[in-house]
Amino acid sequence: MTAPALTAIGIDFGGTSVKFAIVRGPAIVDRGTSLETQGFASSDAILEAMAQEIARLRERHPEVAAIGVGLPGMVDAEGGIVHELSNVPGWCDVALRSVLAAKTGLPVAIENDAKAMTYAEWRFGAAQDYPNVICVTLGTGVGGGLILGGRLYRGSANGAGEIGQTSIDHRGVPAVYGNLGAVEKYVGNREIAELARQRYREAGVEPDAQACTPKALSQAADGGDPVAAALWTEVGTLLGAALTNVVWLLNPDCIVLGGGVAKAGERLFKPIRDTIAARTMESYHQRLAIVPAALGSDAGVIGAAALGAEAAEASLQESKNR
Amino acid sequence: MTAPALTAIGIDFGGTSVKFAIVRGPAIVDRGTSLETQGFASSDAILEAMAQEIARLRERHPEVAAIGVGLPGMVDAEGGIVHELSNVPGWCDVALRSVLAAKTGLPVAIENDAKAMTYAEWRFGAAQDYPNVICVTLGTGVGGGLILGGRLYRGSANGAGEIGQTSIDHRGVPAVYGNLGAVEKYVGNREIAELARQRYREAGVEPDAQACTPKALSQAADGGDPVAAALWTEVGTLLGAALTNVVWLLNPDCIVLGGGVAKAGERLFKPIRDTIAARTMESYHQRLAIVPAALGSDAGVIGAAALGAEAAEASLQESKNR
Repeated sequence: MTAPALTAIGIDFGGTSVKFAIVRGPAIVDRGTSLETQGFASSDAILEAMAQEIARLRERHPEVAAIGVGLPGMVDAEGGIVHELSNVPGWCDVALRSVLAAKTGLPVAIENDAKAMTYAEWRFGAAQDYPNVICVTLGTGVGGGLILGGRLYRGSANGAGEIGQTSIDHRGVPAVYGNLGAVEKYVGNREIAELARQRYREAGVEPDAQACTPKALSQAADGGDPVAAALWTEVGTLLGAALTNVVWLLNPDCIVLGGGVAKAGERLFKPIRDTIAARTMESYHQRLAIVPAALGSDAGVIGAAALGAEAAEASLQESKNR
Repeated sequence: MTAPALTAIGIDFGGTSVKFAIVRGPAIVDRGTSLETQGFASSDAILEAMAQEIARLRERHPEVAAIGVGLPGMVDAEGGIVHELSNVPGWCDVALRSVLAAKTGLPVAIENDAKAMTYAEWRFGAAQDYPNVICVTLGTGVGGGLILGGRLYRGSANGAGEIGQTSIDHRGVPAVYGNLGAVEKYVGNREIAELARQRYREAGVEPDAQACTPKALSQAADGGDPVAAALWTEVGTLLGAALTNVVWLLNPDCIVLGGGVAKAGERLFKPIRDTIAARTMESYHQRLAIVPAALGSDAGVIGAAALGAEAAEASLQESKNR
């Protein structure tokens, strides 16, 4: 698969900010000015501000030929509709693709943000050339995306890849969408902090609030803190249990872990690998790559831009063939 | 997708018997004489007996143009190799496809038996026209297969679809291949019997051995036995927990349940549906079909024959295009 030849604007629409980049293949050529997501009264208002930023970027980069947008929520990529956004009110069945195409005159692709990141890591990042990939983003929530048979797999209602909502304990605590024992309720940022507080207290230490962020816990483990080191083994084992289920079900050749928690590095990756190795047959794990994401916080704009550029190229090709 | 035009011999190679059928599309035209799997000293010996039965069938049906074989174990469908068989000793890296092709002069396809059954249910049975399907076989073990994006999905080492080995409790009891809390250890035939004995005793009843088979437990529930009725709800809820994880991960549009345990019918299907509905978002379950397998014990030979016929047709087409 060759990289798209077209230059596209990649937009990473997050709960906090909307980021813009001019992207060619895997390369960020330029960046736009971010918008504050919560600073707008309606989806119409933020869409108008996005169109203005796009217009400014195109003055600097007239070669821009497509737009791709990744958004956190239920996105119908094929239909071009945003059904709803997590943590952003006022988005209900917005025809984002056609609205943005009408405002800009450019072809537009839209996608769920975790799927856009997965796509970027597969096309240009840590999972290149693997046909079957699960990409997991670890943060406040746990999201994910799937590449299966060399294609982005969306599922029947664009909902595939939600590993954070899969359960590791059928009698566990309820998660936000109703599942019991969803792994997100064990390894989300808040849950890791809560577990750390508990483990420090069990060790007779009263931790301050700053000591229990993923970053501080990584630094503490680096500095030889045995509670923090044991905590990462515990978190990795829990995450490994959830990934073991994915491995039995999908027999992938690559698992990519991204997001803030993944920065804990080998102290998180080792118990994940050990858990999967202990709980699956050899043919499932012997050639399984378990790797950190390579594109960092740019994966969102790179993946969105690639999807935009590829959709534009496919539609050009189609009109040529007619 | 049209049904294959070629007539093929479908072979369902089980741990107990090897069954033969002459198959055209979804129709069983004739049946061969079964072999006893354990009655042969080596894989060579049973392969020779299979070739003889194939020759006999071809005398009656000279139109046979392909062979398909489904087997219980690690089958490399693309490479034509059987890596190992569950419950059948002496099968280690057998080049079944080329051996059988040399013995018969016919094109041969081989496949894992659960995947062959899945393929049959998708092409001709309960999951027709659904692009994303999980098919689960409930028996002593719990197996499965996946159709994703309108194709049989095998995974990177032909291991995909093993829902029986996925866990519903990360601290649960160990299963045969190392996972803890694998759902097979809760809803396999033996485990259902054990759970039934336990529930009867809790109710102050000492059950006889015959009372705890899936069939007897279904009849007891039909007859108004409250212990048996509650047991099916419990089993369905456990199976529903495992399927909920599949739904979050793959967002399928159809789940097919086959095998002996699935004959418990609505008393098993209702708690499965209720569990998935309670533990997923509406968009994941509102259009999700959860249905019994339609082809029964013929799914194996029908699926194997279809895979054989289609492989033969594809290779005919390829040589025409050259």
